[in-house]
Amino acid sequence: MTTIDIPDGSLFGLANLPYGVFSTEGTAPRIGVRVGDSVVDLAATLGDDVFAKPSLNAFLAQGRARWSEVRQQVSDLVTGELPEGAVHDVGAVTMHLPVEVADYVDFYASEHHATNLGRLFRPGAEPLMPNWKHLPVGYHGRAGTVVLSGTGIRRPSGQRKAPDEDKPSFGECRRLDIEAELGFVVGTGSRLGEPVSTADFPERVFGAVLVNDWSARDIQAWEYVPLGPFLGKSFATSISAWVVPLEALQAARMPTPPQDPAPLPYLAEGEPWGLDIEFSVAWNGQEVSRPPYRDMYWSPAQMLAHMTVNGASSRTGDLYASGTISGPGKEQRGAFIELTWGGKEPVTVNGEQRTFLLDGDEVAITATAPGADGGRISFGEVRGRVLPATGGTA
Amino acid sequence: MTTIDIPDGSLFGLANLPYGVFSTEGTAPRIGVRVGDSVVDLAATLGDDVFAKPSLNAFLAQGRARWSEVRQQVSDLVTGELPEGAVHDVGAVTMHLPVEVADYVDFYASEHHATNLGRLFRPGAEPLMPNWKHLPVGYHGRAGTVVLSGTGIRRPSGQRKAPDEDKPSFGECRRLDIEAELGFVVGTGSRLGEPVSTADFPERVFGAVLVNDWSARDIQAWEYVPLGPFLGKSFATSISAWVVPLEALQAARMPTPPQDPAPLPYLAEGEPWGLDIEFSVAWNGQEVSRPPYRDMYWSPAQMLAHMTVNGASSRTGDLYASGTISGPGKEQRGAFIELTWGGKEPVTVNGEQRTFLLDGDEVAITATAPGADGGRISFGEVRGRVLPATGGTA
Repeated sequence: MTTIDIPDGSLFGLANLPYGVFSTEGTAPRIGVRVGDSVVDLAATLGDDVFAKPSLNAFLAQGRARWSEVRQQVSDLVTGELPEGAVHDVGAVTMHLPVEVADYVDFYASEHHATNLGRLFRPGAEPLMPNWKHLPVGYHGRAGTVVLSGTGIRRPSGQRKAPDEDKPSFGECRRLDIEAELGFVVGTGSRLGEPVSTADFPERVFGAVLVNDWSARDIQAWEYVPLGPFLGKSFATSISAWVVPLEALQAARMPTPPQDPAPLPYLAEGEPWGLDIEFSVAWNGQEVSRPPYRDMYWSPAQMLAHMTVNGASSRTGDLYASGTISGPGKEQRGAFIELTWGGKEPVTVNGEQRTFLLDGDEVAITATAPGADGGRISFGEVRGRVLPATGGTA
Repeated sequence: MTTIDIPDGSLFGLANLPYGVFSTEGTAPRIGVRVGDSVVDLAATLGDDVFAKPSLNAFLAQGRARWSEVRQQVSDLVTGELPEGAVHDVGAVTMHLPVEVADYVDFYASEHHATNLGRLFRPGAEPLMPNWKHLPVGYHGRAGTVVLSGTGIRRPSGQRKAPDEDKPSFGECRRLDIEAELGFVVGTGSRLGEPVSTADFPERVFGAVLVNDWSARDIQAWEYVPLGPFLGKSFATSISAWVVPLEALQAARMPTPPQDPAPLPYLAEGEPWGLDIEFSVAWNGQEVSRPPYRDMYWSPAQMLAHMTVNGASSRTGDLYASGTISGPGKEQRGAFIELTWGGKEPVTVNGEQRTFLLDGDEVAITATAPGADGGRISFGEVRGRVLPATGGTA
């Protein structure tokens, strides 16, 4: 038997306990919980086959009462004695995509981001659209290209046309960007014709992950009118390996910024689901931005209520992301197109003047939140390195 | 033993042989082929467990050589003697969703439709966007709300704001519409970073279904700028029960209309994949439109090449639809917003003046194409009846 040593001030203490899917050499992917620098094998300790599966989906589908029960069991387990083979060093395991993603939706919930993008994409026009303060604007993305943190990101090719060119050309993306976001994972689905109220958010949503919504700005700018982003986003969306349960985020809850005009009744919240989460974006190891999640205009409970108010069903494994997190300050912007103002105001990264991503660049997004014990908890990271484009077919 | 009688002139003769998922009372859903007015149980006749599954996906993943082999086996089978229990009357079986849909993409490939919608949604502006003749415009839709033909369509509620209103209100959709489309089902997926060429289309795509992309025009008009349609579409997308294999569509192949400007090389086609398919839209039993698929500007091979040119992977079960099929004539428009010009020019349906859909209305879309034997083949139908809205949460 063995015990787990949780270092003082660990961001993965008992207040956190995030879930992921891991394997060790020669073994099948299964579910584990991260505690300190260890991964606890739940299949080996809790004696339930639901944890022997290669994704969290079956466990997520069991619902909120079960999530709470298991969280308590895990908390008891990791403070006691554990079988040797059930505890692994986090550096010695291979992580896998934690969730089999059903539908993927991306929102646009930061007022600062939407305003900045409006100014950059539609210069001279009102930056915020008339609908923006009435509803959480969102769109569907490609579920099949959601990838695990650490996956190399191949620079996409496609059509792009600069404003000063008279026709489009085919080639490598010249304005490759990131978007630092928080993603929410649906545990318990809802049926067709059954809208989910804002109050039902914690019954339905299991937890949250970090998201990097990689964006090819030149491809996006040419394609997105009138039906929205498509190939400018669909080449890859990275998520973190650890899913932080909503129960671990209770101490992070806070009101959203004031919403004026007051949202329609179906978007009103009885309990606040704003979240006080601090993001950090590192570009080749240097922190370039600290986006504050607390400034997000729309809450995740409002996003879910909006997404289902037309009767659309939701499914276990649905992933919906917040949209880029940007605060009011320049150093709080969660996308490089904003941080460098469309490439016109380079930032200094390790002594070089930089705008969009170059091949070989690596971006790591991390985040922490207050934990129930007065300390902080971590979401781990979502990391990716840009690989050079391949030839494609043109 | 029994034999199948194929009526003279049947639209489900040997030139068709579409696949679906069916069950009979007390039995599990499994794969069948429609021949005349019969459904042949492939699990019971071909002795391969891949046909005992509740969706076509596992069979689709086997690839083109296997699809051809099975098509030949089925053709031989249905012209000979079959076990009594393996043949069912099509009226006596329950059909199920044929495909477990992975990602769902909707294109916008009819020049007539895009021009009409541009005029209606953006009056006074150039109707066709500058990108439209350079790339097949598309966007991701909600895979989880793709439903089988016959499923009742609950009228959605949501936010809508008429141009003469100064703020949005919540309520039932007042402009519920259809879109008659053709959908393509991916059989063999492609990996991340591996674009699919137009020439590879028949290696990748298994077959086609009819699609009704139900649309809430008032919700869509208020929400869709700048990120595209979301709740205006995501409440339901209906597909037909029978998947017609590409092999059955060889006689329907024809060039697309002239493409000017010439598409970029990655969109060029060596072999034409325009399709001469005649659609019919019936509103409460009365035909109101005959959209011609042959007028579609972009081919399905071009759509697939575009969708993957940025390195996006594709998966078995991906469904991508053509967008509304509209021809140049008024009576060839595949959406009621076009047919009634935004509700200003009602059509007569069973003696009544009608614009958008009322509760209880039923729409049935059917289509036929030339078959290899000189006759015609049918796609069956995609049918749906509008159910009254439920209260929702507001």
